[in-house]
Amino acid sequence: MAMAKVPILVAVALMAAVASCSAREPNICMPLAEVAATAADDAVAPLIHALRPLLGSGGQLGSHGGVPCDSWRLGVEAYNVRDWKMVPANCEGYVGHYMLGSHYRRDSKVVIDQAIAYLDSLRLAGNGKEVWVFDIDETMLSNLPYYATHGFGARPYNATSYNAYVLEGSAPALPETKRLYNKLLTVGIKPVFLTGRTEDQRAITVANLRRQGISGWMNLLLKQPGFKGSAVIYKSGERQKLQDAGYVIVGNIGDQWSDILGAPEGARTFKLPDPMYYIG
Amino acid sequence: MAMAKVPILVAVALMAAVASCSAREPNICMPLAEVAATAADDAVAPLIHALRPLLGSGGQLGSHGGVPCDSWRLGVEAYNVRDWKMVPANCEGYVGHYMLGSHYRRDSKVVIDQAIAYLDSLRLAGNGKEVWVFDIDETMLSNLPYYATHGFGARPYNATSYNAYVLEGSAPALPETKRLYNKLLTVGIKPVFLTGRTEDQRAITVANLRRQGISGWMNLLLKQPGFKGSAVIYKSGERQKLQDAGYVIVGNIGDQWSDILGAPEGARTFKLPDPMYYIG
Repeated sequence: MAMAKVPILVAVALMAAVASCSAREPNICMPLAEVAATAADDAVAPLIHALRPLLGSGGQLGSHGGVPCDSWRLGVEAYNVRDWKMVPANCEGYVGHYMLGSHYRRDSKVVIDQAIAYLDSLRLAGNGKEVWVFDIDETMLSNLPYYATHGFGARPYNATSYNAYVLEGSAPALPETKRLYNKLLTVGIKPVFLTGRTEDQRAITVANLRRQGISGWMNLLLKQPGFKGSAVIYKSGERQKLQDAGYVIVGNIGDQWSDILGAPEGARTFKLPDPMYYIG
Repeated sequence: MAMAKVPILVAVALMAAVASCSAREPNICMPLAEVAATAADDAVAPLIHALRPLLGSGGQLGSHGGVPCDSWRLGVEAYNVRDWKMVPANCEGYVGHYMLGSHYRRDSKVVIDQAIAYLDSLRLAGNGKEVWVFDIDETMLSNLPYYATHGFGARPYNATSYNAYVLEGSAPALPETKRLYNKLLTVGIKPVFLTGRTEDQRAITVANLRRQGISGWMNLLLKQPGFKGSAVIYKSGERQKLQDAGYVIVGNIGDQWSDILGAPEGARTFKLPDPMYYIG
């Protein structure tokens, strides 16, 4: 009896969340606005219809025909679910609503609030050697406009269309991360971008960041041609170089566990939510 | 408008979840059953009344007068929120319903499903040297019967009443963890309990485990009198001793990050949910 009621309630609650988000989160809800504005577009319209039926069967609480999506997402964020290739098929609707509604933003805000509380607790040396490492994708910039029209991670990764999107240089800044970034600049901690994006994407990445009002970073570290190895090896190696050059990594933030695992991790790490993809 | 609707929906959904749990989760819902059975008991009855008003103001989605409780819980599980002393006051009702309803069990099941999938993927040496480390409190045994009558972690820790509860030896086994435990025994991996409980609690802890049908462990490692140091130092030190004695830690599971951080962590770690308390 209880189970029969829940999907309906969840559907109504989710609709309420989506309806409320455009006023409060212009950046994050841009994809939704795009979807609405281009409802006649064949490439986009099926998404809208695909989301609805999923709510009843594979929604927030349901486990009919698949994993319970909220528990799966928690498993991802707590690093219990690893090495996954795609969002479970029954969770496309759940992840879509999570990302487009206010939930993703609310979860991100708690992370950034913790980062700022940590920052406020520090006694800084102020010697110009203190840095904070930022990942880019789903950390500083959001690729949600792309994922919103490509199944929110529930469809196979398409390098061609994804890279075409990156080369547009149009990814919006994540507002919570930007709040942390700006605060760091005011206290004299130097931001360092450390990204899995490749060296050939430097110009468009710089242009994208600038268009989003982001500037003042010390380094933009991109993956060099020919590098073979995991994200953990790559990123911890780059952090080691920073440390060897005399920098103190006071903080490190990313949306993937591979951004923040592997010594030297940084004095404190922060994991932003990302239920759309996994990088090992 | 959307915000006004949400608390009502959440309250109904939560009530549905609570109503459904007694049939499905006799162990976890024992405290609730106790509460119902002893509603005339002054010590217990106020809990029921305390939970209800909190739903409207500090429930799952609300952030009126406090943190958004679901985002706070995610922050705890993803190790973004650290060193916290108590559950935020506005989240007592949220955490209570999370723990007593089906949500906690569902989240735990995903973790154990991952652990068993990992186990199934292993090529075991079968040489009697493979072990799996288990924490006890909120990992193998549940102290929910205690916390259900002491504010679910939203009230100051009371060592006297908590220790009195431990000495009853009545804590129920967590059914998902027991499923993993039994599976390990069948494949020849030896369970090792590694707990912050102290040596003087050995007899009652053994009795409690046995009463819950748990047996066959290799070691029960308790904290020795006079040990000073963090949980991470204590537990990683004990794991190092296991490794030095020739054991291979194929897995390590706990409800606290301090159970699973600090080399040697074990080949793979699992973090069970626990929004009630933090041990650093």
